[in-house]
Amino acid sequence: MSVNVIDVDDPADPRLDDFRDLNSVDRRPDLPTGKGLVIAEGVLVVQRMLASRFTPRALLGTDRRLGELASDLDSVAAPYYRAHPEVMAEVVGFHLNRGVLASASRPQELTVVQVLDGARTIAVLEGVNDHENLGSIFRNAAGLGVDAIVFGTGCADPLYRRAVRVSMGHALLVPYAWAQSWPDDLELVRDNGFHLLAMTPDPAAQTLAEAMSSITDDKVAVLVGAEGPGLTERTMRASDLRVRIPMSRGTDSLNVATAAALAFYDRMRSAP
Amino acid sequence: MSVNVIDVDDPADPRLDDFRDLNSVDRRPDLPTGKGLVIAEGVLVVQRMLASRFTPRALLGTDRRLGELASDLDSVAAPYYRAHPEVMAEVVGFHLNRGVLASASRPQELTVVQVLDGARTIAVLEGVNDHENLGSIFRNAAGLGVDAIVFGTGCADPLYRRAVRVSMGHALLVPYAWAQSWPDDLELVRDNGFHLLAMTPDPAAQTLAEAMSSITDDKVAVLVGAEGPGLTERTMRASDLRVRIPMSRGTDSLNVATAAALAFYDRMRSAP
Repeated sequence: MSVNVIDVDDPADPRLDDFRDLNSVDRRPDLPTGKGLVIAEGVLVVQRMLASRFTPRALLGTDRRLGELASDLDSVAAPYYRAHPEVMAEVVGFHLNRGVLASASRPQELTVVQVLDGARTIAVLEGVNDHENLGSIFRNAAGLGVDAIVFGTGCADPLYRRAVRVSMGHALLVPYAWAQSWPDDLELVRDNGFHLLAMTPDPAAQTLAEAMSSITDDKVAVLVGAEGPGLTERTMRASDLRVRIPMSRGTDSLNVATAAALAFYDRMRSAP
Repeated sequence: MSVNVIDVDDPADPRLDDFRDLNSVDRRPDLPTGKGLVIAEGVLVVQRMLASRFTPRALLGTDRRLGELASDLDSVAAPYYRAHPEVMAEVVGFHLNRGVLASASRPQELTVVQVLDGARTIAVLEGVNDHENLGSIFRNAAGLGVDAIVFGTGCADPLYRRAVRVSMGHALLVPYAWAQSWPDDLELVRDNGFHLLAMTPDPAAQTLAEAMSSITDDKVAVLVGAEGPGLTERTMRASDLRVRIPMSRGTDSLNVATAAALAFYDRMRSAP
């Protein structure tokens, strides 16, 4: 079977509505007015969507990108709307140099218990409300052996277009779940055998290296708060251990996704 | 002595020319048409400029930011042009929510030998042509104990406004130098006692952890190439050792500044 290619040259064609005015606020799926669609941009991210639990509804792209994706699309049921770049730009509302988009409905969210199943290292985020940081955390998690991500309160939507793009599509692949009760769900994580490490700049905390070296055989949850405020004191108290990155020139000097990456890396280094 | 505060309410005032039309292309100091000025934005970055080798020519800011900076400005000779946010927006060409700017001329560039002096860990960059990545690398270097940065060919200008901003001002504080001859200047780095570690995704390379653990007593230069192409083969051959980050899901999954941060961190972890 090969993909169903449909040529379109009218930007007003209603079959392209999944991709219309992508920059307008109501396209943010996390807002009440949002349409709830997940959008993948670019060949690599579309390929990751095809490999994920997200099923494409439609694709819109140039002939060139169709060529690059051909073998990936063999068993895809969704139509590929083939259009000139200028037509695409009129539909989405800006010039899109990645040349291809795919839309997907949101599947049912996973539960915390579901994403913990089989996981050995997870990240738990609180108040990470910046889509770029969130996307970077997914990318770092995928690269550095993190099996799942749990969201506490105040986190941004990982399926928002910018988060998906910055994550290089890993927001669609790394399993995540929203805590139903926060921070009480940390008990659920602990009951599943995880050691809860809370990242903090507090100089009295253990270093990452000490902490990770001492618990190589345990399952580990790395708790990270937003850049600036960090984790709430309530969440810190619900953790097992406070850990810090030794810093040379002040504690403002690492981005939250970078700090998380160092923790993921140290975990992988200590318990390969 | 306290700072010389001058109220301005005419956006056309020529004394504000250092800050005019900041978004226009000719403000890029790395372009031939650039004016060569370095711009610091926001209270924190202005404070870092004041602590750096860059001497402010002028400041432009709101009354509120003047209050926040008052004690930092005590011994500053440059004038503080105090203006309403709307006047500032007209001058710079966009609404600036950081509320304060400082300009500085470029001092003479440091030489490679100058920045190596006294350094124990340095980063060497090749082809890092993205201002955000470059800024992030400076921020990570400052936080993770890197003493200096050397630029090979193809790197962006660390003094460009966006790089300075993303670096949180550390582009003004971490010493850097441009190689005069590339990659020949790597010999100069080696002659100064540095062990040259080239970052690569090559699975045949040593892991970062192995490499850093084996050379804790040596000076270390971490060589990083651009995201995508990485270091050139010529530069790889001029290095002492190829090192890799063990990755769980494909080698595209780390941003260049994040990869550099992991190397800096492992260095600090192995040789505190």
